[in-house]
Amino acid sequence: MSDDSRDHCSTNTHQNVLAELREAIAQAVRDVKDKTPLAQSFTNFVTINLVANAQLAAGGTAAMSFLPDDVIETAKIAGANYINVGTLLPFYKDALPSIAQRLNYLGKPWVLDPVAAGIGKTRTAILQSFKAAPPTVIRANASEVIALANMWGLLDADNASRPAGVESVDEVDAAAQPAKLLAQFLAASAPKHKAAVAVSGKIDLVTDGEHTYRLPGGSAMMAKITGAGCSLGGVTATYLAVAEPLIATLAASLLYDRAAEVAEAESKGPGSFQVAFLDALWNVTAEQVAGSDIVVQ
Amino acid sequence: MSDDSRDHCSTNTHQNVLAELREAIAQAVRDVKDKTPLAQSFTNFVTINLVANAQLAAGGTAAMSFLPDDVIETAKIAGANYINVGTLLPFYKDALPSIAQRLNYLGKPWVLDPVAAGIGKTRTAILQSFKAAPPTVIRANASEVIALANMWGLLDADNASRPAGVESVDEVDAAAQPAKLLAQFLAASAPKHKAAVAVSGKIDLVTDGEHTYRLPGGSAMMAKITGAGCSLGGVTATYLAVAEPLIATLAASLLYDRAAEVAEAESKGPGSFQVAFLDALWNVTAEQVAGSDIVVQ
Amino acid sequence: MSDDSRDHCSTNTHQNVLAELREAIAQAVRDVKDKTPLAQSFTNFVTINLVANAQLAAGGTAAMSFLPDDVIETAKIAGANYINVGTLLPFYKDALPSIAQRLNYLGKPWVLDPVAAGIGKTRTAILQSFKAAPPTVIRANASEVIALANMWGLLDADNASRPAGVESVDEVDAAAQPAKLLAQFLAASAPKHKAAVAVSGKIDLVTDGEHTYRLPGGSAMMAKITGAGCSLGGVTATYLAVAEPLIATLAASLLYDRAAEVAEAESKGPGSFQVAFLDALWNVTAEQVAGSDIVVQ
Repeated sequence: MSDDSRDHCSTNTHQNVLAELREAIAQAVRDVKDKTPLAQSFTNFVTINLVANAQLAAGGTAAMSFLPDDVIETAKIAGANYINVGTLLPFYKDALPSIAQRLNYLGKPWVLDPVAAGIGKTRTAILQSFKAAPPTVIRANASEVIALANMWGLLDADNASRPAGVESVDEVDAAAQPAKLLAQFLAASAPKHKAAVAVSGKIDLVTDGEHTYRLPGGSAMMAKITGAGCSLGGVTATYLAVAEPLIATLAASLLYDRAAEVAEAESKGPGSFQVAFLDALWNVTAEQVAGSDIVVQ
Repeated sequence: MSDDSRDHCSTNTHQNVLAELREAIAQAVRDVKDKTPLAQSFTNFVTINLVANAQLAAGGTAAMSFLPDDVIETAKIAGANYINVGTLLPFYKDALPSIAQRLNYLGKPWVLDPVAAGIGKTRTAILQSFKAAPPTVIRANASEVIALANMWGLLDADNASRPAGVESVDEVDAAAQPAKLLAQFLAASAPKHKAAVAVSGKIDLVTDGEHTYRLPGGSAMMAKITGAGCSLGGVTATYLAVAEPLIATLAASLLYDRAAEVAEAESKGPGSFQVAFLDALWNVTAEQVAGSDIVVQ
Repeated sequence: MSDDSRDHCSTNTHQNVLAELREAIAQAVRDVKDKTPLAQSFTNFVTINLVANAQLAAGGTAAMSFLPDDVIETAKIAGANYINVGTLLPFYKDALPSIAQRLNYLGKPWVLDPVAAGIGKTRTAILQSFKAAPPTVIRANASEVIALANMWGLLDADNASRPAGVESVDEVDAAAQPAKLLAQFLAASAPKHKAAVAVSGKIDLVTDGEHTYRLPGGSAMMAKITGAGCSLGGVTATYLAVAEPLIATLAASLLYDRAAEVAEAESKGPGSFQVAFLDALWNVTAEQVAGSDIVVQ
């Protein structure tokens, strides 16, 4: 923990908030290991295997579906769902808006990864449609968060004009306000009005629309394997099957950061990093996850 | 080998059956390594990579296809085929029934993995259609075997009313009679009237409709990587390219159990388990596979 | 370097050509590590994850797309593109010819892997269409190179009648002339009239239509993991984002051969081989790649 972060957490209020959060995070990690909850994913073809393996390594159960009748029937027995718009096929244009509506009608929580938000007419149409049937949690990089908030008309002229480029520390900060606005928008229509947005980057950021949490650590090697972000979205859905949005999102991001640090220390390139990362998702404890540095604002 | 299994195998008849089986199993494992037979797969997007890599690690050659004209042309040069209904796309509804009919018309043996049997109207329609164009081998978990046997009207009222839930040892036993009935149904229309059904679980079960074989061992870690069952279906097809259904099904399931035990001993989480498992598929010998415990009834 | 190869390279002309090539190859390897160029892939579902991870391990950035509007918008920000026709879906029949035309209209270089050329009416129609909108680089095995050259009417009766079978050393030689004719055909319509064809096999062969380069080394284990060839096509696109076709194609093939040798020495089966191979793609240096044996004719 850096001196800066100590200062940030030094008020009594924040310390109380943090103590409660840590207990709830530890409980979520334990619950997933004990209850092996099912989270369903509609995700891209590049990293679908890693999404499933990461969910299993975290302790959950995985089911992957694409056809609307499959998705909806499986959603009925799943604790949470995950939609990732990475690799689109033609039938998704009608299927995904309809699936999002049905999930919300059924009261099923879901995580959205708006991969490549802003690229392609079909993706834009799909993401636009989610404004009327919003997810419970969004997990994305900074550019995608800004693009989505902009697409949904949540930004004022000043924020909307920020350029969206390659992800970086600055960009996570650039996405802080758009992320907060998105979380508030999601919460307005979410069950119990609880929602969260996670922005992945050098320092991950999580917000429920009220407080913003920065999560230092992790590993730069995460950007050298494909699917680090996608599978984090999937594991967030796994935690969302047993915990409320903010806790699930924090738990998943913190588990990822701790596992990435272990994997970096044990590997000598991206091949062995991915292997060690999956092992670490399995071996990192609830106490390690819940004891992480968290900078609250 | 447990005392129980010794007792089960103690009659002379069973010992003779087993001795012949072991010789044929060893020959199948060696033939795959010597002849590198081609098995074609139409399989789900989650585990398609592991299916291909497992087939290669067992010694075979892999080709994956989805388009009917691709599947049928490749089937003509393949020794066996594999159909797995895990992740459905809209065009499968017409394509898969037509492919199954063509495979059977051409006399090409194939393995079915009825993933998630019972979930979704499209999957049900596809699996229903296979009753008229049945596979040579079925590889599934207990719930799927029961659901498929029920769907095809093979169960009496008592069996049909058994609840299908999460896979367990009990469920493998619960699927014993449905598996036998399925194997008899497949055999009725199979080349030389030979077919087999494998039920994966804590103790795998294989039946040709006449005898039932239980295969103790394996590793609980197989449930912590995605695609253990899917890739076993693929490797069964690889063996089916060089051996008759019962031998192919036993050889593949036994290879998987032995490789899983090696991998569990050498790994420290699901990431290194999968790596060690593929290595073990490559390194486990024909003698190790054929010398496995087999409990025959 | 074998004595044979020394003899082949012994003329001054070839030595000068090689010295310049080696410098350009080293520069390409360094440029990819420094600039992390984006290469976009439209590739098969079996090995799409390995393609992306190999591109990242080589130092590049990856994006995978299937929908024409996605592909074309991403192509505008990508340095190069890759099309692999391994696992076809129905909509590819119209989408791929249109994508190839658009890439060429936009002046975007692209690599083709004509997987399974000659099998299936849909694949043949797609590959036929590429004659009118040709790629900048082709990477394939010998049978596929011969089949494609034949399909495009580039072979005389003698070459066209050669049987295409399982890949082997002899077949790489059998594909030498078809590869040269293909490279000349591609160059005729390529930017700056520069193109290349790579034939993968026991000894890889690369030609720009003028000279032919044979690249000894590599590992037989590359045939025991799925996607060695597919991912080489993807990494060739990564290099094509920073270098001209001949240099990109040589650099990628040489990187693969050196990484495969490291991986074979460090692994004990196909599972650990793939892990070590990705690590080696990351760790092999520009000097190791550029200092490789190259036999020029």
